Amino acid sequence: MADLVESKEWYLTAYCPEGVPTTDHLKLRTVPLSLDSDSIPDNHLVVETLLLSVDPYLRGRITGSLEGLFISQYQLNQAITAFAVVRVIRSKDSRYSEGDILLCPSSPVAEYAIVPSSQIARKIDTENGISLSDYLGALGVPGFAAWIGIEVLGDPKAGSNVFISAASGAVGMNAGQLARIRGCRVIGSTGSDDKVKLIKEEFGYDDGFNYNKETNYDAALNKYFPNGIDVYLDNVGGKMLEAVLNHVNKHARIPLCGMISQYNKVWTEREGVRNLLNMVGKEVRMEGFMLESYWHRFGDFAKDMERYIQEGKVKSKSKINIGIESFLESFNSLFSSSNIGKVVVQVKT
Amino acid sequence: MADLVESKEWYLTAYCPEGVPTTDHLKLRTVPLSLDSDSIPDNHLVVETLLLSVDPYLRGRITGSLEGLFISQYQLNQAITAFAVVRVIRSKDSRYSEGDILLCPSSPVAEYAIVPSSQIARKIDTENGISLSDYLGALGVPGFAAWIGIEVLGDPKAGSNVFISAASGAVGMNAGQLARIRGCRVIGSTGSDDKVKLIKEEFGYDDGFNYNKETNYDAALNKYFPNGIDVYLDNVGGKMLEAVLNHVNKHARIPLCGMISQYNKVWTEREGVRNLLNMVGKEVRMEGFMLESYWHRFGDFAKDMERYIQEGKVKSKSKINIGIESFLESFNSLFSSSNIGKVVVQVKT
Repeated sequence: MADLVESKEWYLTAYCPEGVPTTDHLKLRTVPLSLDSDSIPDNHLVVETLLLSVDPYLRGRITGSLEGLFISQYQLNQAITAFAVVRVIRSKDSRYSEGDILLCPSSPVAEYAIVPSSQIARKIDTENGISLSDYLGALGVPGFAAWIGIEVLGDPKAGSNVFISAASGAVGMNAGQLARIRGCRVIGSTGSDDKVKLIKEEFGYDDGFNYNKETNYDAALNKYFPNGIDVYLDNVGGKMLEAVLNHVNKHARIPLCGMISQYNKVWTEREGVRNLLNMVGKEVRMEGFMLESYWHRFGDFAKDMERYIQEGKVKSKSKINIGIESFLESFNSLFSSSNIGKVVVQVKT
Repeated sequence: MADLVESKEWYLTAYCPEGVPTTDHLKLRTVPLSLDSDSIPDNHLVVETLLLSVDPYLRGRITGSLEGLFISQYQLNQAITAFAVVRVIRSKDSRYSEGDILLCPSSPVAEYAIVPSSQIARKIDTENGISLSDYLGALGVPGFAAWIGIEVLGDPKAGSNVFISAASGAVGMNAGQLARIRGCRVIGSTGSDDKVKLIKEEFGYDDGFNYNKETNYDAALNKYFPNGIDVYLDNVGGKMLEAVLNHVNKHARIPLCGMISQYNKVWTEREGVRNLLNMVGKEVRMEGFMLESYWHRFGDFAKDMERYIQEGKVKSKSKINIGIESFLESFNSLFSSSNIGKVVVQVKT
């Protein structure tokens, strides 16, 4: 390999307070990257990006304000970052060798990058029968979010009634399967009849409904939860959350994983939830969470999840888009209800 | 005393789904009550009512629907009930004697009543320097609610920033003092300048504001919480809750005690909270509670609170209205921001 590579990367040109980000906000450019040993600092690696994880929470990093997700903002004129599977091509850390496949939680959205070795989450064993894209799905951001929502905060008992919105999405498909493993009755909402079929046939949901067809959410929840809802993993917020609060059982838990229906709106334009008073009488606990506060549990999660995948108890679907050029379109597809499962950009093979 | 007494009682004639209840819903009538020993069942007491506790949660018992507070409904044509201090005038339970002063969590809103002795919470020691009205305030429903909100669910550390709405109300005045005992910085919102003065001078609040004057709640919270809010005990709901969610610190706790601004509205007319997404990024826990789930802690609470009262660490204000006739007006005064402290109806002395 030459001592200089050309690397395409997505960088931020303007913050996007509301609406869908476009090439007015995120642009692709080509930058040179030296592979010369002298130009690589100690304890750093040069990597080529294999797979990029495309996650809704990134929306919070380009709003230009600390609000909502209160997540650190990408810097203007800098490459944005994402959870990624990368391959080492130069190493200045004796723990890693050329050819190692690594999981990197904050890697530049670029073809090539220099990353500090302190930022590597783990080395990936490519011989254990788990696909690389699963490391970004069931074993990555959405799988970990699902595990915190169900195992840590929701904590449903066998027989509990569990509701999951965005059920065929990257978090939802994992959350539903985790709740089923616990012996719960699990119902999901999703955006098409095909997806309802999928969550029942592939992910073991007991039932589900198409929120674009059964648009009276209150009536739908009445039908699918004759005995009320014990745990609701909220991925969407807004009107669905409001409807759920009319069907909660005593001491219901509502882990708030995200609110994808609300991300592209400034807060004053978001849908207000009018029935929070129900939380008093039903003694409901609603709790937001961010993965960063649970990193100390990542090992427990990964151990559980790897076993479930290997035993066939957790299955996955991915939408793999090819080429770093597809990143922006892939990201925006998260908000259009057009995907099933985990969205991944395959940069190199 | 004659073997038959005339007893005035408030009874329910119609449910009131929204608005302020009137004599269309609650009426006063006089009924005879026999004191003849044969007419009193075993393990029952005939009592005369000394003091009645007037609490906002009773609003939830006359809506005619299980919604919001999900609390059991009063029955039509029956006397309504309330937390009360009563005196025994006839006893069919050897543990209680004529003249005993008792605390009864669910006593008819009547001059005289027959109550099962199983419903007595405790015998009151009238020699311990604690006023009878304190048993309905600091040691009753609002004091217990304040204690659960601060000690159990809010659990602020010394130096934490605590916000309490309806700060001069029956719950608020106790909650503020409990948070101060824990060494917190405590700010309250209340409905007049006089009340702001009172919570600072009498109840030890560090500061407070008049929400009728500082009507931009967001600006007010910005001013009074330069370091954000760690615990918010919500007594009002609606716009104040929404404003608080713009000022919460990481891992803030919001015990939901009640939402008095919302009680007289059907849920679709209530103020929607639009910024629940902030709960995700700040990992906020919001949790509703009802006293009934914490009765097993009542002893711990009463022990703490009696000591605080006797040591002068918790002070109280009461508004005592005279005569059972005043019950309906007293109840409605809870929603008009016209009271300071605990509202009590004194029926007999």
